[in-house]
Amino acid sequence: MSKKNVIFRAMQFKSKFYQCLQQKQTFLCIGIDPDPLKLPAGFTADSDGVYGFVREVIAATSAYTPAYKFNLAFFEQWGSKGWQILERLLAAVPPNILLIGDAKRGDIGNSARFYAKALFEALPFDAATISPYLGSESIQPFIDDESHGAFVLCVTSNPSGREIQDFGGNPPLYLKVAEIVQQMNRLNNLGLVIGATKPEQLVNVRQMYPELPFLIPGVGAQGGEIETAVKVCRQCGTGLINVSRAILFPASGRFPENIARQAAHYQKQFSRIDS
Amino acid sequence: MSKKNVIFRAMQFKSKFYQCLQQKQTFLCIGIDPDPLKLPAGFTADSDGVYGFVREVIAATSAYTPAYKFNLAFFEQWGSKGWQILERLLAAVPPNILLIGDAKRGDIGNSARFYAKALFEALPFDAATISPYLGSESIQPFIDDESHGAFVLCVTSNPSGREIQDFGGNPPLYLKVAEIVQQMNRLNNLGLVIGATKPEQLVNVRQMYPELPFLIPGVGAQGGEIETAVKVCRQCGTGLINVSRAILFPASGRFPENIARQAAHYQKQFSRIDS
Repeated sequence: MSKKNVIFRAMQFKSKFYQCLQQKQTFLCIGIDPDPLKLPAGFTADSDGVYGFVREVIAATSAYTPAYKFNLAFFEQWGSKGWQILERLLAAVPPNILLIGDAKRGDIGNSARFYAKALFEALPFDAATISPYLGSESIQPFIDDESHGAFVLCVTSNPSGREIQDFGGNPPLYLKVAEIVQQMNRLNNLGLVIGATKPEQLVNVRQMYPELPFLIPGVGAQGGEIETAVKVCRQCGTGLINVSRAILFPASGRFPENIARQAAHYQKQFSRIDS
Repeated sequence: MSKKNVIFRAMQFKSKFYQCLQQKQTFLCIGIDPDPLKLPAGFTADSDGVYGFVREVIAATSAYTPAYKFNLAFFEQWGSKGWQILERLLAAVPPNILLIGDAKRGDIGNSARFYAKALFEALPFDAATISPYLGSESIQPFIDDESHGAFVLCVTSNPSGREIQDFGGNPPLYLKVAEIVQQMNRLNNLGLVIGATKPEQLVNVRQMYPELPFLIPGVGAQGGEIETAVKVCRQCGTGLINVSRAILFPASGRFPENIARQAAHYQKQFSRIDS
């Protein structure tokens, strides 16, 4: 990794997050979920193909996005080989782009500390997604150091998330999670994951916690409400709206120009500035 | 991996679980949580040291235990290199011992499927631990195939687990999780993680679900109630009681004889037969 990149990654999380958003003037986050069965012609449906594809995706889109969210499952499926290509790909991302490890880890004690070490030292992620089922102890090791942060799963975009996250009725569990995260956010390096497919919850949690950044998946292929997602980010001044499939696998056009075009489209659509 | 081992791993989950317990006549599960700072003299505090240490732990204990639970965090801290040593270590475990990947993954759709592929194809685990925050969709891909199974986090042994797992009061969230798991257990390849530090919940969930296997951490160094843990396993005829630190890092004795002695001690203490 370049010296410039090392310096950038060591910045205070809140500052580098703000700087990235400021430079690109958008809440766009590109989700790197490289399904090997969907790669364009010329890429093999294996870890080598995924490596080559993601290299080109980064080259084609880094001018448009303040953040990439890498989904670890898509790499881990190949074991140590998948981790190797992830390491090489992350090293190729230029500075001034936030790197989020979408790993949904959630453990305690030494285990949580070692998961943080995996994502923030073995890999150069600036932030990670965390699952809150084990409570605040599972979040703390990811936010001890102010150069790194975490987005905690609160309201997910999938149907069966409701079984757990709405549990308890009034108030539901997801509001308890938001409350814990708000209380733990002393270094301004915590946020919440709330799906764009849940606009009511987005608005509700935003009203209760005006300053917590949201990481919002579920836009694009999943059909979430774009307007609400952009609105709740603008209200806070910060936040990320993730698009994966709709950028990585456009319905038409020539690769990689079609991907660059999609990234430019979403950069504009998720603009920080209300025009 | 030997042909015998390949055949064993391909068995129906319920059958191989039962066969392992039957052969060793104990509910013992040895937790492979190799803290590099605690290794005996002669092992370096890095991934090579951990590899050498765990190789010897397996050789010293495989006669006593029906199961190993590998904690992925302790390997992932070294990135792809950590995954490499995990792959080599798992290949060295003899057949007729159940391999549990304590990964606490929890995602949906393709991501969940790729996490299952990582643990069950890239790595040879028979079962995985799963975090239920995203609901039943995050569990299903791990139990689609009857040769593999999952233990879903229900009541964890750490203090802050209560913030989330007891939420909702009467009934609390953890009973909702148990209910979902019971309903999904059509292939007899699901179980629950309930900490030995929570004897009331162990007894309560056992009464409600007499046939669900429990994976019980928190015994030994964490000070959980051994008697209750053994009792709820005997009532069901199946289950695992995990011991990590108290076996891997005994307070005294010469390595590796001291580890073998600890394993033999817990094999007896967690006996399937009430004597």
